Amino acid sequence: MTNAAMQEKAETSPIESIGDTLHDQMIDVNAVILDRMQSHVPMIPQLAGYLIAAGGKRIRPLLTLACASLCGNESDNQKKLAAAVEFIHTATLLHDDVVDGSDQRRGQAAANEVFGNQASVLVGDFLFARAFELMVETNNINALNSLAKASSIITEGEVLQMSLIGNTDITREQYFKIIEAKTAALFVASCEVAPILMGQDATAFTAYGHCLGMAFQIVDDVMDYTSPKMGKDKGDDFMEGKITLPVIVAMENASDDDKEKIQTAIKNPSADNIDDFIALLEKYDAFNQSVKVAQDYSNQGAKSLSHFTGNIAQNLIALPQSILHRVI
Amino acid sequence: MTNAAMQEKAETSPIESIGDTLHDQMIDVNAVILDRMQSHVPMIPQLAGYLIAAGGKRIRPLLTLACASLCGNESDNQKKLAAAVEFIHTATLLHDDVVDGSDQRRGQAAANEVFGNQASVLVGDFLFARAFELMVETNNINALNSLAKASSIITEGEVLQMSLIGNTDITREQYFKIIEAKTAALFVASCEVAPILMGQDATAFTAYGHCLGMAFQIVDDVMDYTSPKMGKDKGDDFMEGKITLPVIVAMENASDDDKEKIQTAIKNPSADNIDDFIALLEKYDAFNQSVKVAQDYSNQGAKSLSHFTGNIAQNLIALPQSILHRVI
Repeated sequence: MTNAAMQEKAETSPIESIGDTLHDQMIDVNAVILDRMQSHVPMIPQLAGYLIAAGGKRIRPLLTLACASLCGNESDNQKKLAAAVEFIHTATLLHDDVVDGSDQRRGQAAANEVFGNQASVLVGDFLFARAFELMVETNNINALNSLAKASSIITEGEVLQMSLIGNTDITREQYFKIIEAKTAALFVASCEVAPILMGQDATAFTAYGHCLGMAFQIVDDVMDYTSPKMGKDKGDDFMEGKITLPVIVAMENASDDDKEKIQTAIKNPSADNIDDFIALLEKYDAFNQSVKVAQDYSNQGAKSLSHFTGNIAQNLIALPQSILHRVI
Repeated sequence: MTNAAMQEKAETSPIESIGDTLHDQMIDVNAVILDRMQSHVPMIPQLAGYLIAAGGKRIRPLLTLACASLCGNESDNQKKLAAAVEFIHTATLLHDDVVDGSDQRRGQAAANEVFGNQASVLVGDFLFARAFELMVETNNINALNSLAKASSIITEGEVLQMSLIGNTDITREQYFKIIEAKTAALFVASCEVAPILMGQDATAFTAYGHCLGMAFQIVDDVMDYTSPKMGKDKGDDFMEGKITLPVIVAMENASDDDKEKIQTAIKNPSADNIDDFIALLEKYDAFNQSVKVAQDYSNQGAKSLSHFTGNIAQNLIALPQSILHRVI
């Protein structure tokens, strides 16, 4: 192997490796996604296609396929479930952007900015309903149950988050409850539907999805302050009054004076005080401490699949740690 | 029977009679509704309860129970499906009110006015997901299929309606497509899930639900101009640019001058020109002509269940005509 080839290999992340290995299956999943977002009402595929074509890493459907592969199955039903998972994810993105009043998503204007809030709400509903139609086609009530439960839990997480906006008294436990619901629940369903569909024990996959989702969201919340995503502004959560782990860590450790400063800043967020606010969080090592929590979830997640072998299993096991590498 | 008692009996509408006959079952359905809208996130039952407690006639779950009764079954699964149907209906009301920017619903401030658009979107999602959880519990993939299909069709109807706002070139066929999707589809599902659950032929119930839903929406669209619902303003559809059957009928028959007047009014709707607009529609007998179309659907609907006998069947057969009595 040449140095260049080695370097390229070294730079391939676990999720990219999984994507390479499952390339042909993902082509089929993308075909299902494209086919099932069609409608005789032109605005539906236009709006859905606008968001879906903008990319995203398709991490959730890849997880479904990868876990199916570990269970020894590559059926059309797994592909339908993978597409259903992506539809549910896309529907929640559309509704979240309406709820948050977002103007950017995946490096382009958010769908609600281009097509309006009304269309985003309705097309989100459409994709959600189509997800259930796809699940029905697998003819498996247990897989349906997993995704139906995840869907109601996600919205509970979103409402809980909304009802705690600007509340600096929020505890770690409440924060974990929010992210477990709004993020980890769909990771859980993405990972466990495959074994469930096949009537296998899903315990290891449920645990893996949970830990991966928790690590994923904590890292996301840290990066919101330290290295925002393409097209996003630094401190979006701060501007929206979302209290995430770094703020909770800082509040746990801050002097009374600094606590008050944090509370005051949260009450009056502006682009002018964001840098001072981040400096306050850094003073209490809030980002590193948060990443440590994500690291614990990452280790636990890797452990839950450690009894599997082979290329895909290795990459699934390496995936939680690689998510941490986005910030450390 | 005393005169007073006879009069009271005469005034009982078919849907009220069905409600009386199925009173005990509906208590169970209401208990399921109340139980399954609960969540550890307080805002969810608060918002859902606000709308659900405001009433509504529960016509859709009553249809599910009534059709189940015609098929000879009163199982807990039918009650779960009836609750699921009401959850889907409530979810669409919450989202519709956000999409339409409504300020009134069921004679009180709309939920989006009290709790905000964001909460309405998310709690709608929650109820929708809970509906699917309830359906999963019936363990019947065919009933699930009926309601999943209805759910995606409803949103297609809503988006189609939205994309044709203010468009006076809309044809009867397009209008029928919209109301078939946004309204009749859920009536169809409400009526057909019971026989589907029991593995019986659902053809008659599908046809009945379709005709009832079409008549229901046409009457609703006429009443929007002639006798608006409690808490609604006369001509809400006009103000929102929704082109319904009375406007289409008038446009089909109007002189070129009046066509232009209609188009101009639709482009600049205001409380000042609503009475002139209604007078224009009346000039072309638009309300009576629309009711005649509803009458055709009503007759067809009644016919589709004519081979059933007994108290509930008689009331189901009389129901489409009684809907017309709201306007004639």
